[in-house]
Amino acid sequence: MRYYSYESFKTDMETLVCKLDFNPDGIVAISRGGLTMAHFLGIALDLRKIYTINAISFVNKIQQELQVSNIPELRDNSKILIVDEIIDSGTSMERVLSILKNINPNIEFKTAVIFAKKNARIQPDYFIQEAKEWIEFFWEVDILKSLRERRES
Amino acid sequence: MRYYSYESFKTDMETLVCKLDFNPDGIVAISRGGLTMAHFLGIALDLRKIYTINAISFVNKIQQELQVSNIPELRDNSKILIVDEIIDSGTSMERVLSILKNINPNIEFKTAVIFAKKNARIQPDYFIQEAKEWIEFFWEVDILKSLRERRES
Repeated sequence: MRYYSYESFKTDMETLVCKLDFNPDGIVAISRGGLTMAHFLGIALDLRKIYTINAISFVNKIQQELQVSNIPELRDNSKILIVDEIIDSGTSMERVLSILKNINPNIEFKTAVIFAKKNARIQPDYFIQEAKEWIEFFWEVDILKSLRERRES
Repeated sequence: MRYYSYESFKTDMETLVCKLDFNPDGIVAISRGGLTMAHFLGIALDLRKIYTINAISFVNKIQQELQVSNIPELRDNSKILIVDEIIDSGTSMERVLSILKNINPNIEFKTAVIFAKKNARIQPDYFIQEAKEWIEFFWEVDILKSLRERRES
């Protein structure tokens, strides 16, 4: 298990901005994982068109299912960067990309994540690190930890 | 001018979560300002339905104009929390609230920001601090500062 801090995130966002050889008109953040990333990249790339798409994974009686909703209207764009924190199994990114490409055949999509996995169903166009263990992102653990401490004190 | 750090933000998000006497089904983040906030609140409140709305302020030949786009489809919700970093003039929040209420007369909306201003056109349901000076949010200055330093080195 590895804690991924705000400091590491900042450095990784700088690296990502320097790596990008793509000038998107807007960013689609896969929610929730890609939200903070979209905020920082929006500022760094001076993009004001930030969209979200909700990809919710849940377990039904038989298997894990993925529900994609809140599909953004991207018509006025020609290049879109889709961001998420991690490509784990790759199911979310693969499905989101397929849905958005299908609706918007004339838009060029690229994908960027912080962490990629070698054996995932899909590889991103841009990533910063390989995920070799379970990652605890600061946006997940910091607030829950503080709330727990506050309740216990 | 005041620098608003990640540490202050974390504390303020805890305070906001403790203050909230409202159980929303989802969060609408006014983009870009409300994105990181929506991410942290989504985690803390265990909400997976996070939407964005783009409120872009620009100056035309005569006056400042506000363009609201990427209006989310909220039909399946009954309570929605709208978040932004700051209510400054109040124009963005007032317009967003009016548009969303108009489309969704049966949804109960509440608004939450980190910073509120006494003389704004609208007061939020929840806020943490009063804004008395210009605020430099960590999500705006940290990445731009690092990128500048990297380019200069």
